[in-house]
Amino acid sequence: MKKILLIHGPNLNLLGEREPGIYGRDSMASINAEVVDKCQKNGMECVVFQSNSEGAIIDRIHAAREDCDAIILNAGAYTHYSIAIRDAIAAVRLPVVEVHLSNVYAREEFRHVSVIGPVCAGVIAGFGKNSYLLAVDAVKGLLA
Amino acid sequence: MKKILLIHGPNLNLLGEREPGIYGRDSMASINAEVVDKCQKNGMECVVFQSNSEGAIIDRIHAAREDCDAIILNAGAYTHYSIAIRDAIAAVRLPVVEVHLSNVYAREEFRHVSVIGPVCAGVIAGFGKNSYLLAVDAVKGLLA
Amino acid sequence: MKKILLIHGPNLNLLGEREPGIYGRDSMASINAEVVDKCQKNGMECVVFQSNSEGAIIDRIHAAREDCDAIILNAGAYTHYSIAIRDAIAAVRLPVVEVHLSNVYAREEFRHVSVIGPVCAGVIAGFGKNSYLLAVDAVKGLLA
Amino acid sequence: MKKILLIHGPNLNLLGEREPGIYGRDSMASINAEVVDKCQKNGMECVVFQSNSEGAIIDRIHAAREDCDAIILNAGAYTHYSIAIRDAIAAVRLPVVEVHLSNVYAREEFRHVSVIGPVCAGVIAGFGKNSYLLAVDAVKGLLA
Amino acid sequence: MKKILLIHGPNLNLLGEREPGIYGRDSMASINAEVVDKCQKNGMECVVFQSNSEGAIIDRIHAAREDCDAIILNAGAYTHYSIAIRDAIAAVRLPVVEVHLSNVYAREEFRHVSVIGPVCAGVIAGFGKNSYLLAVDAVKGLLA
Amino acid sequence: MKKILLIHGPNLNLLGEREPGIYGRDSMASINAEVVDKCQKNGMECVVFQSNSEGAIIDRIHAAREDCDAIILNAGAYTHYSIAIRDAIAAVRLPVVEVHLSNVYAREEFRHVSVIGPVCAGVIAGFGKNSYLLAVDAVKGLLA
Amino acid sequence: MKKILLIHGPNLNLLGEREPGIYGRDSMASINAEVVDKCQKNGMECVVFQSNSEGAIIDRIHAAREDCDAIILNAGAYTHYSIAIRDAIAAVRLPVVEVHLSNVYAREEFRHVSVIGPVCAGVIAGFGKNSYLLAVDAVKGLLA
Amino acid sequence: MKKILLIHGPNLNLLGEREPGIYGRDSMASINAEVVDKCQKNGMECVVFQSNSEGAIIDRIHAAREDCDAIILNAGAYTHYSIAIRDAIAAVRLPVVEVHLSNVYAREEFRHVSVIGPVCAGVIAGFGKNSYLLAVDAVKGLLA
Amino acid sequence: MKKILLIHGPNLNLLGEREPGIYGRDSMASINAEVVDKCQKNGMECVVFQSNSEGAIIDRIHAAREDCDAIILNAGAYTHYSIAIRDAIAAVRLPVVEVHLSNVYAREEFRHVSVIGPVCAGVIAGFGKNSYLLAVDAVKGLLA
Amino acid sequence: MKKILLIHGPNLNLLGEREPGIYGRDSMASINAEVVDKCQKNGMECVVFQSNSEGAIIDRIHAAREDCDAIILNAGAYTHYSIAIRDAIAAVRLPVVEVHLSNVYAREEFRHVSVIGPVCAGVIAGFGKNSYLLAVDAVKGLLA
Amino acid sequence: MKKILLIHGPNLNLLGEREPGIYGRDSMASINAEVVDKCQKNGMECVVFQSNSEGAIIDRIHAAREDCDAIILNAGAYTHYSIAIRDAIAAVRLPVVEVHLSNVYAREEFRHVSVIGPVCAGVIAGFGKNSYLLAVDAVKGLLA
Amino acid sequence: MKKILLIHGPNLNLLGEREPGIYGRDSMASINAEVVDKCQKNGMECVVFQSNSEGAIIDRIHAAREDCDAIILNAGAYTHYSIAIRDAIAAVRLPVVEVHLSNVYAREEFRHVSVIGPVCAGVIAGFGKNSYLLAVDAVKGLLA
Repeated sequence: MKKILLIHGPNLNLLGEREPGIYGRDSMASINAEVVDKCQKNGMECVVFQSNSEGAIIDRIHAAREDCDAIILNAGAYTHYSIAIRDAIAAVRLPVVEVHLSNVYAREEFRHVSVIGPVCAGVIAGFGKNSYLLAVDAVKGLLA
Repeated sequence: MKKILLIHGPNLNLLGEREPGIYGRDSMASINAEVVDKCQKNGMECVVFQSNSEGAIIDRIHAAREDCDAIILNAGAYTHYSIAIRDAIAAVRLPVVEVHLSNVYAREEFRHVSVIGPVCAGVIAGFGKNSYLLAVDAVKGLLA
Repeated sequence: MKKILLIHGPNLNLLGEREPGIYGRDSMASINAEVVDKCQKNGMECVVFQSNSEGAIIDRIHAAREDCDAIILNAGAYTHYSIAIRDAIAAVRLPVVEVHLSNVYAREEFRHVSVIGPVCAGVIAGFGKNSYLLAVDAVKGLLA
Repeated sequence: MKKILLIHGPNLNLLGEREPGIYGRDSMASINAEVVDKCQKNGMECVVFQSNSEGAIIDRIHAAREDCDAIILNAGAYTHYSIAIRDAIAAVRLPVVEVHLSNVYAREEFRHVSVIGPVCAGVIAGFGKNSYLLAVDAVKGLLA
Repeated sequence: MKKILLIHGPNLNLLGEREPGIYGRDSMASINAEVVDKCQKNGMECVVFQSNSEGAIIDRIHAAREDCDAIILNAGAYTHYSIAIRDAIAAVRLPVVEVHLSNVYAREEFRHVSVIGPVCAGVIAGFGKNSYLLAVDAVKGLLA
Repeated sequence: MKKILLIHGPNLNLLGEREPGIYGRDSMASINAEVVDKCQKNGMECVVFQSNSEGAIIDRIHAAREDCDAIILNAGAYTHYSIAIRDAIAAVRLPVVEVHLSNVYAREEFRHVSVIGPVCAGVIAGFGKNSYLLAVDAVKGLLA
Repeated sequence: MKKILLIHGPNLNLLGEREPGIYGRDSMASINAEVVDKCQKNGMECVVFQSNSEGAIIDRIHAAREDCDAIILNAGAYTHYSIAIRDAIAAVRLPVVEVHLSNVYAREEFRHVSVIGPVCAGVIAGFGKNSYLLAVDAVKGLLA
Repeated sequence: MKKILLIHGPNLNLLGEREPGIYGRDSMASINAEVVDKCQKNGMECVVFQSNSEGAIIDRIHAAREDCDAIILNAGAYTHYSIAIRDAIAAVRLPVVEVHLSNVYAREEFRHVSVIGPVCAGVIAGFGKNSYLLAVDAVKGLLA
Repeated sequence: MKKILLIHGPNLNLLGEREPGIYGRDSMASINAEVVDKCQKNGMECVVFQSNSEGAIIDRIHAAREDCDAIILNAGAYTHYSIAIRDAIAAVRLPVVEVHLSNVYAREEFRHVSVIGPVCAGVIAGFGKNSYLLAVDAVKGLLA
Repeated sequence: MKKILLIHGPNLNLLGEREPGIYGRDSMASINAEVVDKCQKNGMECVVFQSNSEGAIIDRIHAAREDCDAIILNAGAYTHYSIAIRDAIAAVRLPVVEVHLSNVYAREEFRHVSVIGPVCAGVIAGFGKNSYLLAVDAVKGLLA
Repeated sequence: MKKILLIHGPNLNLLGEREPGIYGRDSMASINAEVVDKCQKNGMECVVFQSNSEGAIIDRIHAAREDCDAIILNAGAYTHYSIAIRDAIAAVRLPVVEVHLSNVYAREEFRHVSVIGPVCAGVIAGFGKNSYLLAVDAVKGLLA
Repeated sequence: MKKILLIHGPNLNLLGEREPGIYGRDSMASINAEVVDKCQKNGMECVVFQSNSEGAIIDRIHAAREDCDAIILNAGAYTHYSIAIRDAIAAVRLPVVEVHLSNVYAREEFRHVSVIGPVCAGVIAGFGKNSYLLAVDAVKGLLA
């Protein structure tokens, strides 16, 4: 059974409460529940991780090379400058799907740049919690 | 029944034959067949349009405001400079999902910029023909 | 009798319906009627052309060198990147008045750049349908 | 009766004498006379002001909020860098028409930027003294 | 007794009336009164100066080297481009506190740059009239 | 009683010892003592936090939304690139005063940019330990 | 017998009449005649195509993969921004020689950039109609 | 007898006192005396003008077209941004020698740009008061 | 006996496994062993630290000011954006040798910039594990 | 009889041996022989010069104004920065054809810029040794 | 007796013949004669050097530290990019006067940058051969 | 026995005398002696070359392909712009170690860029004469 790691980056623990006009009213917990559920229905296991710390996210990505088959990653603000996370992704060589709740390309200029994009398999952005659910399908395709 | 317009921009008519290392070996016809099929399974109708002409794409987007509920758009190279297509999308006020076969963020610098991104609902890129199939789900969510 | 060519570029066929907060509620047809009427009152003939296609606009500009004395041109989004239209204007050597409904300088940064500006006689922007009517007077002055 | 303030910025007092290949041979006095006359024919009063001093122009714009209904402004070189004049325009909330004798977009790169443009109602450039006369019509429309 | 010079740059004479959503509803006179009062309570004298003219502001800064011990300066729009005021500050060698009513860093990009910043002692921005009152304390500290 | 959170970012634990020519000779402990004391005198409670870790600072900002009314934040070097801290500030919707000991605008170019500035209430920089003490007054005003 | 496709982009239909100081006095027809003739003398067939439409040029390039061995392309203004034509060239994998009548590097800055250059075999520019005739030899070498 | 106008821009009235490490210890008065004297010895008359106001400098340049034959101009900080002074120089068509006391090219980056340079006859910079005296010789040559 | 601190930044714990084409096949442990050994042979003690966390690296650098004489630092991806680590280096005033396994100047553009370079003593890059061993000699020279 | 000067710039003496994947396997000597031969067949004389020294190339260009009628110039790397060679070309006023073996526009960004391009008659690039042979024809046309 | 070294850089050996509209009709020999003569009249000796080679100019600057007291340097095109000549000037610590015949600031953008300017004493540009003669006076002042 | 070529670029012949605060007080001769000696102790031969001429350095690099096994190169100022030297290094395919006496990354911005870096094996900078001695070890490792 394939195992998926879902990583939420900084500030995503506040989902539902944080700027709901941009990020929606779903909590991280409810999104996680839906993702885990969808993975199971697709014959995959899903483990979840959230941290506001760049280093902890890198640690978790590293660990994934031993216990996971793919990563769904919403790196939050780190998307735009964490070359260290980029290098971690390149190092573990697992397929990674970059996910964003909001359409980052419709927001501030600095959110249009993803330093992790070039080492991910692909990106899904702008569909709220559905971005995560679509990513489950995307991962399934990548692992097929 | 909701009606989806799938638009392929320039050079996508050569899919399967064109730089298969980047774009894959599926032909546009086979992708269309899968998208139409998936739409039907989801209770939606899908019409398909391809053109290498910026003006023709704009014309079709305009027409969509009278006969369609949403658009799946792979604008191809026009993604990167066609402000006219951007304005067309803004003008018709239908939800538009931007789609790319390849991970444009892993390619040449000029492909990292999408002038249509800010007026689309969201983007799905990098999953080959699956990008289109995921977009069907995304559209379904947007229309829900 | 002097003959004026009025060209509307991409998306202007949707005037009245398209983003009325920016472009106003007048339809292209009603604007055309007013421009034609004003031309006649000033002893000039006016022919009207609209296209969403860059190539068709170039074709019409070319044709104008044989049947028109001046051009009033709202190139829409092509204003910002169509060097081909710029070259067409330079090629036909007719006086061209660049017109915009909205004050493009108060909008997105990319709308501040006009690649056709340097080969036009002048520009009138920001006055809604009046931009066109003022252009009739401007053209009359240029032809005097 | 509506009252219009016509402001000429730096070096425009030398009109007719100054680089006539660019700015034409009409003196500021003769242009003023034509503008005043056209205003009167349109049922509006026109007062005229010229200064080479940025501060004096700001002072006059401020005063206008008490005695004028709209401003026709050729800010000359200040167009390109006077954020202070920009702020003055925003502060008084009168409709302002930006005017230029020459087609600034066909000249040096630094003349393509207008820092006052985003707070003006619109711009008319390139028609010599007619730029001013067209602005009278534009103002009339704005006040209607 | 230490003497403080409070300088208001262009458009600040319209405070209270000018874009109150950005600059607040306090008039310049009422702010001046509060600053003068706070200075007195802190054993300092305060003189006030306002001008829309860059040259007049420079003149006043020059004069301050003979009759003042420090300057509180809201240079308004000149903050962003007046190298001449910057040089005046460097020339007189008095401690200068740069003050802004609004948080300039949350506004247009061009307001993020202060050409006078590098020659001032420090900056206080974003607290409305309190920016001035805090500056009195800051000056007191600098002169201690 | 209002509760203020004072956050010191990276390297500020070395205050007094670290580059005293730039940051002064006051230790972080002595500054904290003065800030806590001033808060008390103004009827406010102050809690203090320092970390060199971006993630830990974000965690503390998050926690503040439940136990604090405002934040005084010297984000140190993170000021210039931590979009994650910026997003944390925006997420908790507490008033935040950005503070710097030195006049960052008089130092290296990269210190002129604050990515957190646009989501803070205001900034106070350049007055050494007084920057913090002034921030107490600023916060008091913001909470009034 | 090898078959060469000669494509003329926008405005080249006006050759001879259009800005002769830059583009020379030869008509497109006369140039075509010379190119066809030279091809025949070199044992090659030459077919000619001109369009002002980006889409039509792409269509013709696509068709060439079935009926031609190489392309001589003067993309005119599209040279500088048509990523769609660039992608068409890359898609068909025929050798393409980029041709310009004028020395584009001695003209406006924006004409120094060729977005199609990186996917062409080489470029010949600045020799008037001889640029085309030299391209015939170049093509012959590429096909040898 | 040729008449030379010597203009000192902003802050030069403080010469001798202002940042002597950069600008030297000569007062403006003593420099003026030497320049006037040298002019006389060379059979030329010299009039002197100083102002901190951009507008006043423009006024004086305008007046010079009626009573002077050439201008020696140290525009001080206005050198770097006053397009209005640039236009004044172009308008009066007198030969102007740009002068600087310090070597502006060895100072801050923003002092390397002269917006008036392109309309002056030449520049002399870096020789302290000698820059002015050399300019007298330069002017003599230009008027010969 | 001099004590050297060897710090490995993010992702270097995966050495040997991570992108061996770029970083080589030596594990971090084997490199550490060689460095410690070489230090001992040169009469120096070496302690080793690795972390993926920016904050932890700063903490360790701080601690080094009390127990180490010099630092050999491979900051990994943090090299390119961690101003916080830069400030930590400047704060502790120990000699620091910047080390890279790969020739960063032969890789992506963003790896050419080192924000820590200006506060390090020097840099050694491109020699694989030898970069570290050379750094031991470099440190020895700096401490001599 | 017309005399052509063929100049090879730096590193071209290693042709055949140097990066043959980019520059081909023809030696400079064999290319020279073909060019000389083709010139003779076209009734022109050809002299050849190679140097790795910018100064020597300038000297030879200078000398050419007395003994040659045109220049075929492959300036190698100097193409991209030698303003001195550019000025030499402008000084001698002979027609110069810029030549490159490889398609420089398909290589590193810095090779897309030619500082000599604007003063040459035209450019031929990308055809290997044929670039030189085509240049012989181009020169013949220029001298006709 | 002070000894001055006059250095002419690339292409200046063609003075009088080379682009006389820009550089004038005086030959280098006649300028040298005037400079030598003026030096003698001022009690100084002048030696002259010209080379088109960057290396030879550096060699001569090096030698000057043993036999000259100051340098008058027209580095020609090397002015704009020869950091090696800049370093040579800094190395020999002689006063250097940068000289240009034409007003480089009124020409192409790339001629506005002088990489040697920051290490020269000053610059004189735009006065034709008089630039050199003024430099003799400037040098005399620097050596006084 | 391996043979190493040590190349010193422009101005390095003045070492010891030239800006000793930056480059140290060791002469080039004494550095050469130490490098030669260290090579011998490591069983390698070392030949030394210095030139201020870009062309001569290229010539020597070319020659090295026949008589040397590796190069230690301090290209001095040419490091920052000599694409010709870069191409020479790429052409000869010997391992090259880039060396700098000073930490170029702590100096002017233009010294942070190395155009030769991407084709060298690695770089050692900032350790004074030790940079060269470390390079001997680096070369030994590369040749092992």
